[in-house]
Parts: sequence; structure tokens; C-alpha cells
Amino acid sequence: MTYPAPDDPPRTGRSGPVRPGPDARIALQPATAAHISDGFWFARRQVNAHMSIPQGPGLLESAGNLHDLRLAAGTASGEYQGHYPFMDSDVYKWLEAASWELAHTAPEDAGPELRRLADDVERIVTLVAEAQQPDGYLNTWFQVAKGGERYQDLRWGHELYCAGHLIQAAVAHHRSTGRENLLEVARRFADHIDTVFGADKQIDGIDGHPEVETALVELFRETGERRYLDLAAYFVDRHGHGLLGGEAYCQDRTPLREAENVEGHAVRQLYLLAAAADLAAETGETELRAANERLWLAMTATKTHLTGGLGAHHDQEDFGDPYELPNERAYCETCAAVASIQWSWRMALLTGQAQYSDLIERTLFNGFLAGVSLDGESWLYVNPLQVRDGHTDPGGDQSARRTRWFRCACCPPNVMRLLASLQHYLASTNGEGLQLHQYATGRYTGDVAGAPVVVSVNTNYPWDGRITLTVDQAPGDRPWTLSLRIPQWCEQYAVQCGPDTLEAQAADGWLRLERTWQTGERVVLDLDLEPRLTRADPRVDAVRGCVAIERGPLVYCLEQVDHPGGGLDDVVLDTGRPLAVKHRPDLLGGVTVVAGAGWRRSLPVPQWWPYQRTDQQPDAADETGERVELTAVPYYAWANRQDGSMRVWLPTA
Amino acid sequence: MTYPAPDDPPRTGRSGPVRPGPDARIALQPATAAHISDGFWFARRQVNAHMSIPQGPGLLESAGNLHDLRLAAGTASGEYQGHYPFMDSDVYKWLEAASWELAHTAPEDAGPELRRLADDVERIVTLVAEAQQPDGYLNTWFQVAKGGERYQDLRWGHELYCAGHLIQAAVAHHRSTGRENLLEVARRFADHIDTVFGADKQIDGIDGHPEVETALVELFRETGERRYLDLAAYFVDRHGHGLLGGEAYCQDRTPLREAENVEGHAVRQLYLLAAAADLAAETGETELRAANERLWLAMTATKTHLTGGLGAHHDQEDFGDPYELPNERAYCETCAAVASIQWSWRMALLTGQAQYSDLIERTLFNGFLAGVSLDGESWLYVNPLQVRDGHTDPGGDQSARRTRWFRCACCPPNVMRLLASLQHYLASTNGEGLQLHQYATGRYTGDVAGAPVVVSVNTNYPWDGRITLTVDQAPGDRPWTLSLRIPQWCEQYAVQCGPDTLEAQAADGWLRLERTWQTGERVVLDLDLEPRLTRADPRVDAVRGCVAIERGPLVYCLEQVDHPGGGLDDVVLDTGRPLAVKHRPDLLGGVTVVAGAGWRRSLPVPQWWPYQRTDQQPDAADETGERVELTAVPYYAWANRQDGSMRVWLPTA
Repeated sequence: MTYPAPDDPPRTGRSGPVRPGPDARIALQPATAAHISDGFWFARRQVNAHMSIPQGPGLLESAGNLHDLRLAAGTASGEYQGHYPFMDSDVYKWLEAASWELAHTAPEDAGPELRRLADDVERIVTLVAEAQQPDGYLNTWFQVAKGGERYQDLRWGHELYCAGHLIQAAVAHHRSTGRENLLEVARRFADHIDTVFGADKQIDGIDGHPEVETALVELFRETGERRYLDLAAYFVDRHGHGLLGGEAYCQDRTPLREAENVEGHAVRQLYLLAAAADLAAETGETELRAANERLWLAMTATKTHLTGGLGAHHDQEDFGDPYELPNERAYCETCAAVASIQWSWRMALLTGQAQYSDLIERTLFNGFLAGVSLDGESWLYVNPLQVRDGHTDPGGDQSARRTRWFRCACCPPNVMRLLASLQHYLASTNGEGLQLHQYATGRYTGDVAGAPVVVSVNTNYPWDGRITLTVDQAPGDRPWTLSLRIPQWCEQYAVQCGPDTLEAQAADGWLRLERTWQTGERVVLDLDLEPRLTRADPRVDAVRGCVAIERGPLVYCLEQVDHPGGGLDDVVLDTGRPLAVKHRPDLLGGVTVVAGAGWRRSLPVPQWWPYQRTDQQPDAADETGERVELTAVPYYAWANRQDGSMRVWLPTA
Repeated sequence: MTYPAPDDPPRTGRSGPVRPGPDARIALQPATAAHISDGFWFARRQVNAHMSIPQGPGLLESAGNLHDLRLAAGTASGEYQGHYPFMDSDVYKWLEAASWELAHTAPEDAGPELRRLADDVERIVTLVAEAQQPDGYLNTWFQVAKGGERYQDLRWGHELYCAGHLIQAAVAHHRSTGRENLLEVARRFADHIDTVFGADKQIDGIDGHPEVETALVELFRETGERRYLDLAAYFVDRHGHGLLGGEAYCQDRTPLREAENVEGHAVRQLYLLAAAADLAAETGETELRAANERLWLAMTATKTHLTGGLGAHHDQEDFGDPYELPNERAYCETCAAVASIQWSWRMALLTGQAQYSDLIERTLFNGFLAGVSLDGESWLYVNPLQVRDGHTDPGGDQSARRTRWFRCACCPPNVMRLLASLQHYLASTNGEGLQLHQYATGRYTGDVAGAPVVVSVNTNYPWDGRITLTVDQAPGDRPWTLSLRIPQWCEQYAVQCGPDTLEAQAADGWLRLERTWQTGERVVLDLDLEPRLTRADPRVDAVRGCVAIERGPLVYCLEQVDHPGGGLDDVVLDTGRPLAVKHRPDLLGGVTVVAGAGWRRSLPVPQWWPYQRTDQQPDAADETGERVELTAVPYYAWANRQDGSMRVWLPTA
């Protein structure tokens, strides 16, 4: 694949999806400007820009989402299409993605492809506006398929959820293009909701699927209208009080401020927590901040897969119990990875702590990126950590095979909108310097007491651990701090400034380099990328006696296609043999593979009963068998070749 | 609990649920008569007879099933009650259970409780007959809630499934009471189905939930009408040809004769296979028999939990992949245990092989019996092998807590009907002797060239391994074989006949004792019940590094209530310390507990990330911690005290 040369200069002054207000009590602000210009994420972004996003309108047309909007607008006739009440949200998420994409290029520099995208966006924005009802209400499912009834099924109706995605699209569209038309639609719907919902209004209620809450905070940030923030706070507060029957699934079992661990439908929980972090930022409420911190720690310590994936149950798309982290039935919905990144980024800004960006990095490179194929044209909804030999694929949305589009198509446009706005999750500023949370080739602008500081990053990360930073602009007359996150997985690193090796030590995950930086100064950070073996807390029963191969931020897996002559269920890793690394530009778009050694167990002839007395089946049976060379590939790249088994966690002797 | 003294004499000539026809090509016939009179299963039967079954009519009334029949009969008005199209089947399964219960006692010996039960049965039979439509069709969901449409939704409608349970109830009622009224209803419905369904009839189709197939075979056996057998064969043959869209869920992906492993919805698969075994018996078809044998071996070798439980997925109640046998999310629906026993019994009769009864024993004592509480008043739908510390119970049908009745109440009456007819699954005859498949105190009658042979069994099994057999009746002038199944789990046994220790060795699971038995002769079989540790095939990833405690046919588990001061997720079993056995008449209705030793791991202070480099978290961390005495109780008795964690598989060092 070749794509047009990068037409992606930084456009300062444009904001990303999260723009804390002037009074927010937060440790860090998003970077003043951020721009990815080359390297790993640039390539993924190019695929997103030139393959995934441009195909959106056609897919939304054939899936019926645009048709449904036309039905609501009265400009088409026929049956309502699609199976879910949240068909509109796919349109909104695509509009958000396309809007972020438009922001990369000044309109006057746009080529024909981007001008076509801008036209598509405006065409669909017009369609959305036409579908809106005079009082601001907008939901095609209820307008068309349900005969106009409203808010009768808050548990499952997704009306406010769709409103939330409309608002986020409108904010993105406004921030990216400066145009008011979609924002106007969103404000009218938000105003309508504000007249209906409230403790002393028509309906004291919440939506079964959170999303409107974080969107309303952002609408407050975009418009300055305080009542949107109040409405968001109302919705967050009313969760957990049984308004929807008290189910954990709907985030209605426990008030957030009292919860001890994340629970219920993973995406719902995470969207709600993103809003809670937003509110803690804007209101400064310490109890809500403490709940966010407590729940984040409980989630990562007990309910997060190695890939950053979240959600252990297919049934109800639920988090599951502490340490219940299955491999073959890991749900790890791609949307949950997106939502986790959104929440963690808000927490990173709120607290300034590096751990949140550690999880973002892990999720981006693994649980999130696995959700889209290398060619940007097919998707995974669930992201298991194992596919067994003899797997019978169920097909449909929850297939372990990549799918062109889903019946429930929430994930693809969610991936698109995150990739299109990815630069906004990489760096921050705090008036005293610049913090680099992630390492992607590009330019990042911070603020030192009102003066801009600009740092360029050049790296072949994650294949190479060397990250070269150049100060492109600095006041030159005063000290400030360039903070580099030392990843949680990293045991050894070295940092050089010009000819000098610095003795600086990271504290709390941050390597803080304070000096009066001069333009042109260079820092070279070397992160040790020796591949490593990882094991889990022993309470993670699903992986007892197993290790995973990791290298840098990447989780690796075995795929059957690389291991002809047998399956993977009987493979044992020989941990006594060293791992070897090789970059393979020809493979999977260019990946570094990790080679290891192991054997295929010599298993007894299958009997009818697979359970035996321990004295009949000695441990030694595991340790014999045919030697086999193992080739591990990055997890994010799996399922891009042929069907077959896969596993992240490898049994050891 | 005290119940009336056993009023349960054997009633020869009465058949159980499976009565192969005179031309069936089978190795074994069910015993001529069978009667359980004391001991473990007698106690469970008493609870079933005096608690579970008598409560049925009240529960069916309050859940709306009987109301729905009245609506269909036009003798009541109101809304249809219940959420599922198979509400009728609960009534039929209860009728079947109650009918088997009535068969234990001659009508003239019935006390007031049994007379009340007989009255309830006849009242409900009358109601069923009134609800039937003139042409024989009968399904309240479609008659009442769906405005009379029929056979429009074969995938989900369960019309033939309900018909199947009606037929089975009618056969049971006829065999138990000699009455024709319910059999007449069933025949009229079967005749109606026979006019509608067929390759060249109105509908070439199958039901999404098999059940009618095995019922039609039994109706053929009861009535001698060959066309019921042909219709059953037609339905079995048409599965797997895409008539319902080709889903594995509906047993429609692969024709049975081509299938390599069980798949899809576990109960559907098993009911279909029971019918396939019936057909192989009646037709002698070797290909169908071979498919049954192949699928049974594949199921037991790769998709069966230690408890005999079947079904690895909550989602779609599906079997899952080979060796995918999770603990906390084991589905193991109680109905699947019932269905597995039904299929295996048919296979035992078809082939004469002991392994089928090995699985029946394991399932009866563990995966099946766990489904009903000790008091017979509450139930488990799913039967997990682990409940974690900090478990958030979802409530509803799939709760890990016992429930009074389910929204989808398929399991309770399924347990009732199996327990009420249990004696029919214990022994067989083949014209050359008597085979004892299971050991329950009682009397069992076989046939030797037309002469009856009667053997009494006396045992405190499974608490004690001694089984005393007395020949109560024998021709006395010719040799015949008393065959005793030596359980697959049993490593050592001894058998004595009078004063003589016999040197007989079991072959293929059967200890065959051939002699000219005289009335009064006694055989004492001693099965060694030393508790043992069991491990799984290494492909069962979920239990790597773990063992289970078993004793005799019983799988044991730890429950939190017996281990105060901590949870169970951090417990490690010390396999170097011996297991000790103690009978506790005071506990859980009287159980033998197994005591072991272990420790609670000394786990690091929780960090935010539970995955560590192997060089940072040595194995030795597992081997230190607080010593703890462990008390294992039989799995079937779990969840009868207080809520809390539970686990069958125990990590070892």
C-alpha cells in the first residue's frame, strides 16, 4: 500500500476530544499542539485516513443507518433498517472520526480525497439536521420504528447514548472545522434533554448506556454553558440508585462514589467513569476523584487482561469477577479498549500520574489495535487471547475472524475516531514544561508560563527502543522540565543529552529533565527492549503455569500459520532457551518477531475420560515430545493471515 | 426431615422411560423390575417425592403455566403469563415426574399424599386435554399469545419440543397408571404433526430444540405405530441441512452422521443424540450407531467437566471448543446433565459397554445432583466449578445461588422426572443374567431365558465401598451371570462369595460372575474409596497446575463457609500431606468430608498491574504463607449453607 505523502502539518490552536475548562482542577493540560508525522502510529493513521474512514459513508449506507436518517427526515420511504436502537450512533462516531481527520490539514491544503471527505461530512451533517424534530429530539429508531414514542425504554432505548455521540461528533466537527451547523443540532438536542430530565423535571431517569454524561461535559467545555455540566453531574449521580431496576449491567447497582470495583457491562462502566473523571476535573470534587482512582486501581489489578483488554464475559458483555480473566472467552470488546483509553487519559490529566499512560500504551498497542485489520478494512469486535485448535467459529459479531462490518457496528467507527485524534493522547503540558506520555515520531508543543516549548520526537518505536528528542523551540532564558514517561514494563533505560549520559532517575514513572533548554538540543532516550517472559498474579487461574512473551509495549502471540505440522494446544515453551529477536519487514506490514523454542507434548492416546489420578499421569509427561521452533508475532497483528489457532499465554514445563 | 416409611414396593411389569421394542438391536434390556428401598438415592428420592414434586402444581400455578393452559382452553381470561414459548413443557415434565412417582406404589396402597398427587395429575391432564385444539395441535404460546399462528418460527417456537415433552409425559402416565387419557392427547398431537411435517408434506422442517424425536420413538414403542418411528427418523435426519439457517446452536450445521464432535446448545445436542441412539437401537443402523459412539467419545474426552457437567458457554448455552472447560463460567446446565444421563443410558443398552454407566454415575452424583438443594425446594440452573472471592452474583436464572424457581424453569421438573424414575437407570438384563450398573440399596430383577432372577443390593454407598448382594430368586438349575460394574475411578476392589474370595477380574469395566446361583447366596463387593487427587489432560488449560479431590464417585469442593478467615482464591493444596476422611452425619444431611492441608499464599501487596516479569515473581512466592486446614465437601452438596466462594480445582505448589 502506498498513500499520499503526509499532508499533516500541526495546526496549533485546534483541540482534541478532551479540553478541560479554564477552572478545571487538574495536574496536566493536553499539549498545546501535537502532530504525528512518521513511524508506527503514522502508518496506522494513514490506513485509517485512506481506507477505514473513506469507506464509512458507503458502509453506513449499505447498513441502513443513513437510510434511517432519511426516513426520519421524511425524505425517503421504506422499512427501518438495522437491528438496534442505536443505529444513529454509528453515524455520529463516523462523523467524529472524519472531523478529527479533517483537522489534520488546513482546508486550503486539502487534496481531492480530503475535499471529498469534507463533502461527505457536510452531506451527512445536513441529513442529521433534517432528521431532527422541531423540539430538538433526534433518534431515528424511536421516530420511525417506534412510532414516535420517547424515553419509554430508558434501560435499552439508547436515546441519550446516541445523543452523547451526536454531541461528541458536534464538538469534534466544531473544533476541527469551525463550523456551527452540527453543534447547533447537538445543542438543541441537549437543551431538549435538559428540559425533560432532572430530579424535579418530567423524568427523573438515566440512560441504560452511559455516554451522554462525558459528552455533556465536553459540550459545557465547548460552549461555556454551565447547565450542560450540571446535567452531566445529575446523570452521573443518579446511576446506582435503582432507577433502571438496579442492575450492574446498566451501571445501576451501586453509586459510583461507593463502588469498590468496576462491574457490569464494561463499555458502559468505562464511559460512565470517563464522565466521572471529567466531573472531578471540572468540579474539583475529591470524593469523586477518589472513587475514580480506587476503581481504576481495582480494575487494572484484578480485571484487566495482559493486552489491556477489558470484559471477561460474552454474556452481558460483563467485567466478571476479580481475577476472572479467561483466554479463549476473553471478551475484550474493542470499544472497551477505546473507552479505557478515554478514561485513563482523563485520569492522567487529572492526577499527572504515569500509570494511566502506562495502561494507555499497553491498550493502544495490543487490545485496541488488534480490533482493526492491517488493511483497515475489517474488524474484530471481541479480542480473545486464545483460539483453540478445532475452534468452531460462531460467526457474526463475536467471531474470532475479522469481519467487514458488524450488525452491531459500534467498534469500527470507535477505532476510527480514536486513531484520527490519537495525537491528542500523547503529550501534555502544565505551564512548567512538556510531558511526553507516548513515543511517536512528531512534534509536541507545551507551555512554559505562557511561552511555547516545542519538542520533536524521532523514533522507530516500538521496534527500536531509541527515542531521539530535539528541542525545536524554547524560551532559552529559563529552566523548564521535559518529562519522559519511563514505561512500567521497562527495567533498564539510558538517557543522553548531547554528549553527556545523564544520571537522571525516573520517579513515579516520570524521568524529569529540568534545564534551560536551548533550541536544537537533543536528548536520546534508550529503552531496553529485550524480550521478556511475563507471568500473572497466581489468582489469575486461567494462566497458571503459563508465561507470555512481551517486548517493549507489545504483547506477543503464537499463530498456527507460523507453526505448520500441528496445533498450538499441545505446545510448551522451553523457558530455558533464550528468546531471539528478528525484524521482518516482509511480514504483517513489518514486525519484529520473537523466536523461542519449545516442544509439542507427547500426549497419551486420547481416552474417553481426560481426568486421571495424579499417580497415573506424572508431570514428566509434559516434558517430552517433539522439539518445535516457535515464532511469536505481535498480538495486534494476529488474524491477518489465515484462520487458525492462536495463543498469548504459553504453558511452561 | 422425616418422611413416611418407604411405601415403595417393586411393581413388576411397569416400564421406565426407555423401553426398547421387541425388534431392537441392543445388547441389554432395562431390568425387568427395579426398586430402590434405602440408602443415598432413596433419601434423595424421598425429598423429591415429598417436597419437590408436591410443590409443582403450586409453582406452575404461580408462574402462570396452568393459567396459560386455561386461557387456551377458554376457561380463563387475562394476559398470557411467562416469558418463553415453552411454558407448556414445564407442565409436561412435571406430569412425567408425578407419573413416575405414582408408579412406585400400587393405587390401593396409596396414602393421602399420594392420592392428592394422583388427583393433581388427573386435574392437570384434564386441563391439558381441554387446551388441545380440535385438530390435535396444542401450544398455549401460539394459541394465546401469538394469535393462533403455527409453525412460523420453528427456530425459536419450541412447538415440537413441547410436543415431545407432552408425549413423554403421556408415555409415563400410561406406563405408570394404565390410563389412556393423556396418551390420547399425545397421539392426537403426534398424528397432527405427522400430517404436517415431512419431506413431501406441508412443511419440510425441524424444531430448533430437539426433543420430539426421542419422544416419538418412545411413542412408537408404547403404541406399536411404526409411523411415529419414521417421523422421528425424518426429524433426526433433517438436522444439519440448513433448514433453520445452518446454525450449530440449533443442531443444524452438520448432519449427525458426519459430525466429529458435539457442538452448539448442549441440551439440544444431547436430546437429539438420545433420539439417534433410540433410532440406532430400533433400526439397527450401524452408521448412526457409529456416529453416536464417536460423538460420545469426543464429548467425554474433550468437552466434559469433572462433574459430568456439559456446556462451557453461558452465551448460547454452548458446548464450546475441545478442552475449553472453564471453572467459574462452566455452564453445566442441570438439564444437560439430565440429557447426558438419558443419552448414556440408551448407549449403555445399545452397546453393553460399561463406560456409559461410568459417566452416568459421575453425572448423577455430581453435575446432576448439585442442581437441586438438599431440601428439594430450590435449584441451580448452571453448575459452576468455582465461585470466586468477591463474586458479584448476577441473580436470575444463572445465579450461583439456589433459586426457588426460574423464569426459564426447565431444570427443576427435569430433575424431578429423573429422580422419580431413577431405578430404571440402574440395572439391565440380557436373557443371560443381570447387570448392575449402579449401586443403590434395592431389588433388581433380570431374566435368564425367561426365568426371573432377583438380586437385592444393600449398601451405604457412596460413603462406604461395601456392596452386599443377595440372590433372592434364581432358577437354581442353570448358570447365569451376575455382572457388576467396576467403576472407572476404582483402582482396587475385592469380591467375596460366601466365605470365598473370588479371583475374578473385571474386563472392560464389568466383573462377570457366572455360576449356578442359588437363592440366598451372597456376594460382597468392596470398592476401595481412598480419597484421591485428580488432574486433567494438559490441554484443559483452565485447571493447569491444579488437582481435584475425589472419593469414589464423588467430586469434592471447598466452600468458604468451612474456611473462615479468608477467601479461597489464594489457597494452595499441599499434596505432600495425606488426605483424611471423616463421616459427618450432622453435616449437609450426612456426608463424608475429606480433610487436607494447605496454605494461603503470601501474596504481594496488590499493585496496579498483576502481570510481572518472571524474574521478578519467583515461583517460591507460591510456596509460603499461612498454613490452613482444608475441609472438602461433596460437590453435590455445595451452596446449601451460606453464600460464598467455592472451588473444585485446587492449585498445588
